[in-house]
Amino acid sequence: MTRYFGVVEAGGTKFMCAIGTSDGELINETRIQTRSPSETMDDVIEFFREHGKGIVACGIGSFGPIDARESSPTYGHITSTTKVLWRDFDIVGFVKRALGVPVAFDTDVNAAALGEAVSGAARGIRNVVYVTVGTGVGGGAIVEGAVLHGLLHPEMGHIRVPHDWARDPFRGNCPYHGDCLEGLAAGRAIEARWGVSASAIARDHQAWVLEAEYLGLACANWICTLSPQKIIFGGGVMQSQMFPLVRERTRSLLNDYVDVPEITENIDSYIVPPLLGHRSGMLGALELAQRCVSLANSRS
Amino acid sequence: MTRYFGVVEAGGTKFMCAIGTSDGELINETRIQTRSPSETMDDVIEFFREHGKGIVACGIGSFGPIDARESSPTYGHITSTTKVLWRDFDIVGFVKRALGVPVAFDTDVNAAALGEAVSGAARGIRNVVYVTVGTGVGGGAIVEGAVLHGLLHPEMGHIRVPHDWARDPFRGNCPYHGDCLEGLAAGRAIEARWGVSASAIARDHQAWVLEAEYLGLACANWICTLSPQKIIFGGGVMQSQMFPLVRERTRSLLNDYVDVPEITENIDSYIVPPLLGHRSGMLGALELAQRCVSLANSRS
Repeated sequence: MTRYFGVVEAGGTKFMCAIGTSDGELINETRIQTRSPSETMDDVIEFFREHGKGIVACGIGSFGPIDARESSPTYGHITSTTKVLWRDFDIVGFVKRALGVPVAFDTDVNAAALGEAVSGAARGIRNVVYVTVGTGVGGGAIVEGAVLHGLLHPEMGHIRVPHDWARDPFRGNCPYHGDCLEGLAAGRAIEARWGVSASAIARDHQAWVLEAEYLGLACANWICTLSPQKIIFGGGVMQSQMFPLVRERTRSLLNDYVDVPEITENIDSYIVPPLLGHRSGMLGALELAQRCVSLANSRS
Repeated sequence: MTRYFGVVEAGGTKFMCAIGTSDGELINETRIQTRSPSETMDDVIEFFREHGKGIVACGIGSFGPIDARESSPTYGHITSTTKVLWRDFDIVGFVKRALGVPVAFDTDVNAAALGEAVSGAARGIRNVVYVTVGTGVGGGAIVEGAVLHGLLHPEMGHIRVPHDWARDPFRGNCPYHGDCLEGLAAGRAIEARWGVSASAIARDHQAWVLEAEYLGLACANWICTLSPQKIIFGGGVMQSQMFPLVRERTRSLLNDYVDVPEITENIDSYIVPPLLGHRSGMLGALELAQRCVSLANSRS
């Protein structure tokens, strides 16, 4: 019998809501503009009251940082975000109270990594990194089939990479770290550096070679630290011309030290775009909701 | 009934061999100087022929990079190491043929991370990074209680970190990557930069502030990528005066963005020395040997 789940991908500019089925389908996809928590969440709850009768659980993939440690007193909150209206908002508590179902919760990028691992570009692969390069830079990971948490959750957009000030005098615009990866390579940084939005920059502009330098350095660091079997890049900045540049830079930086054919010979199928397009995060949130129900059943 | 296991920690300057018991004890610890593979391994095998009667398996933690992918045709080999005599040496095959027991195999630092997680500074913790800063820099990790592999294994010493050439004109001496972390912060780099060995540099010398800069950058990157619950630093370069410097630099670089008390309030118990001293790797290799026997039993 098909079961139904609530699905939310909470982003800084839009919330995507849908009803997901136990067959992995998404129905009634709806886009809600992100405003204040109360305005936004009223629309989210209204969507589920209208379309979500009979859902058995809800999965949320959210912009972060978030508190996803189940033992924490602030579990389910969005925490030190730069989106000040949302700071310390208890999104899990809000949805749980309004809908009366169990809620699974993770970062948007951990959810997207899970979605791609379950039915996308990393299907059947147990160790995956998913990175989005859009307004900001975020990364999530699956390790041996499970979403990576540890102390909190990955914040891969905030690693430090070498910054050649002679080549790139832009000082970086991450409000927490200045010239971390996000401060140098996010859409927001590209726009601040070149004075026009990333989407308005020609495909053969030097901006993309510099962008590939930073993303190549980041890939090399993620590979040396996490040893993923695949790296998936989504987000508006990752247009098709970026992939060959990032692959070549990553391979060249590693210089055959990580001596496996996936990198030395077949990097074209190692650093790839998502297969699920804009649905990676929602399908991951659906999987989170399904796993939370299975877990509850196995405990009872 | 107590069972016995062979234990090898294979290093670039010495091989430590011991017999380990199922109670977690090490007996007959022996140091063998590393020379060519045939000279070194003859001594290793002789040690086990003399002391290791009745061992049911052997665990090896080795310098790397290694091939620890069980499905690979070169499983059990040391691979692209800078120690040319050892390149492509099949250490697992050699020990298996000589002793006729199952052999478990991992990197020296993954073994040390496991040892510390089982009975050392990270006892009871499921997500740990172990880093050694000695002649080189290496790092291993435990994620949800299991040794981290993925594509191959972590090579944390080879991440790129910002290098301020005005402050530190030393160009880095990693033969593969120049100024990666190992090329800037390993004992070999310290000696090349300052002209004297790390052990001869005064504790209040500026060398240690620069060293803490690189290790702090590395910690911030590992935290943003892997989100460990503890970082353990071993190795000859990590003398006691380094810990306060590295902790302070890491905390300051993260700038409260990873907003958890383990980092913002209690970093003194987050970045710590090993509790097992020089035995972390051997006790981890013992655990690897025990797990490989349990796994074989559960399969049969």
